[in-house]
Amino acid sequence: MTEFVLDERLARRPVAADWGLSTVLFVDDARFPWVIVVPRVPDVTEIHQLSAGDQAALIGEVARASRALKAAFHPEKINVAALGHHVPQLHVHVLGRNRSDPLWPDPVWGPGEREPHNPVPYGDPGFGEALEKLRAALDRVMF
Amino acid sequence: MTEFVLDERLARRPVAADWGLSTVLFVDDARFPWVIVVPRVPDVTEIHQLSAGDQAALIGEVARASRALKAAFHPEKINVAALGHHVPQLHVHVLGRNRSDPLWPDPVWGPGEREPHNPVPYGDPGFGEALEKLRAALDRVMF
Repeated sequence: MTEFVLDERLARRPVAADWGLSTVLFVDDARFPWVIVVPRVPDVTEIHQLSAGDQAALIGEVARASRALKAAFHPEKINVAALGHHVPQLHVHVLGRNRSDPLWPDPVWGPGEREPHNPVPYGDPGFGEALEKLRAALDRVMF
Repeated sequence: MTEFVLDERLARRPVAADWGLSTVLFVDDARFPWVIVVPRVPDVTEIHQLSAGDQAALIGEVARASRALKAAFHPEKINVAALGHHVPQLHVHVLGRNRSDPLWPDPVWGPGEREPHNPVPYGDPGFGEALEKLRAALDRVMF
């Protein structure tokens, strides 16, 4: 059986939480509170390749991440998406949107570009502060 | 308790299947095999508002729809997304992508447009034929 290894492009992002199934990564884009939920299951590129138990755990952890984003950053709307055109390893984007954000109502995944599309970095100390706020919310928020 | 009523914009699409939790709608865009999975739960706009049981049922039905799309249309990749910027009622897009499709690797949800973005209709009899092929696969494919 293969061991799970986080894709190196995903691994560049800081870990915000490690849960039962998934590792939660924080995306450095100040326009949107944004995490990536990565189930630590080797050789999986599609949700339907997971066992029924892992599927249920994944959506539970996606919901928990959504609640934490709401608690920490108060977005109006949550987006959830598994795309994988650039990074095949299964990963689920969970991010907050607001009617006042710079891309509303467009999706955040832009034409022909890497994920995320033209990010606006938090800078220093904004990134560390946002990550700490997120980590506290991820710890606090239950299923 | 409110009764569930399918959003009228979603209701314009033909029903491909009615499952335990969700109704599966077929999208008339010949570029991508595409369904919309709508849990029949009133007043829900976000996945994390569903009960844990309904969350597990939803991801199971999303997986089942993914398998049916693979079986009927053989796409290389499945996209799964809950966005809801235009239609707030919770609905999950499940669609097939190919490296040769006209938008790869961009997402199918285009800037500032209705869902789907500039669809290319199947026409007649292509739409009915595709719908029948999908329905047969949705019936056949188990969890």
